[in-house]
Amino acid sequence: MKKGDLTRQRIIALAAPLFNRRGFDGCSMHDVMDATGLEKGGLYRHFASKQELAAEAFLYSLDQAIKTRTDGLDHIPGALSKLAWIIRRFVETPGPVPGGCPLLNTAVDADDGNPILRKLARKAFADWKHRLAVIIAEGIQSGEIRRSTSPDQLANTIIAALEGGLVLSRIHGSREALKDVEASLALLLDSVAAPVRP
Amino acid sequence: MKKGDLTRQRIIALAAPLFNRRGFDGCSMHDVMDATGLEKGGLYRHFASKQELAAEAFLYSLDQAIKTRTDGLDHIPGALSKLAWIIRRFVETPGPVPGGCPLLNTAVDADDGNPILRKLARKAFADWKHRLAVIIAEGIQSGEIRRSTSPDQLANTIIAALEGGLVLSRIHGSREALKDVEASLALLLDSVAAPVRP
Repeated sequence: MKKGDLTRQRIIALAAPLFNRRGFDGCSMHDVMDATGLEKGGLYRHFASKQELAAEAFLYSLDQAIKTRTDGLDHIPGALSKLAWIIRRFVETPGPVPGGCPLLNTAVDADDGNPILRKLARKAFADWKHRLAVIIAEGIQSGEIRRSTSPDQLANTIIAALEGGLVLSRIHGSREALKDVEASLALLLDSVAAPVRP
Repeated sequence: MKKGDLTRQRIIALAAPLFNRRGFDGCSMHDVMDATGLEKGGLYRHFASKQELAAEAFLYSLDQAIKTRTDGLDHIPGALSKLAWIIRRFVETPGPVPGGCPLLNTAVDADDGNPILRKLARKAFADWKHRLAVIIAEGIQSGEIRRSTSPDQLANTIIAALEGGLVLSRIHGSREALKDVEASLALLLDSVAAPVRP
């Protein structure tokens, strides 16, 4: 990697927790200058705008979160166990970039403006839903999950409940709400499990 | 109501959508001056700080949302029907103050700082959970809901799934995710319903 690329990567990694914690409006290029020790000119040599840096910082935080939360998934057998594993990992593993879920933060931050971040968040949610829906569809295919189950509907519900549970847990400073969500999603997964043939 | 109180109420009502849309950092006292037509001195005569105004604006938005979403609930008979009604109302009725759910916005905005707003959001979530848990406990009492159901757990799950569904719906600009959540919560409510005695 060239020195310029290394500096760029370093700026992104240092800016990521700032944007994740404070949001787009709450984090200034001055804050990034303070965190990186770079002058304004040095920063703008690598990023044309705060918008561009914020987008890269979001993609970096997202990538870290996905890695942390899917690493090891391939070894889990069966669709329902995979879903339960993904839910538990989300509930039990704190995000690697401080400030909570970057996807949630960016979505709430950008839902009334900032079309670039909004588009990135929309794509990230769609990708996440797709990853879960594929697992659910495989479970239907294999006979593990009831045929009447809608993969998209269940996928959206898992994502919504986890993200909402995270909001509650962070505001209360306790994992209780996420644990409650995990227990309820387990009930929901039970209810979509195909009856075992005698 | 005195003229001063009327002015204060008018400022709060005009500031509420600004804070709800843009968050605490994204909304300046200048924005409020523009929206109200008041000078800085006029604004600070009514509110000691931006913090105080933001807190009042949050409580105003919250109050409007609660009114919109609970009006008529008393006429619904039975705990499970009450819960389904609350869920449908949340899914189908847009919040009265533009910018999405004030509780969600404030919670995500304040979870890394702003202790006053954080405390208000925490209390609002606790109150909401309590209102739902009371309905669930009454359903257990009446034999409508299984005794093994935890009122707090189910209440937290409903709140988490609705708020998370709202995040997804707002970012996608479509009500699909909230509809998905409604359908899944209906399955979950079915699974906690006590078996009908023959």
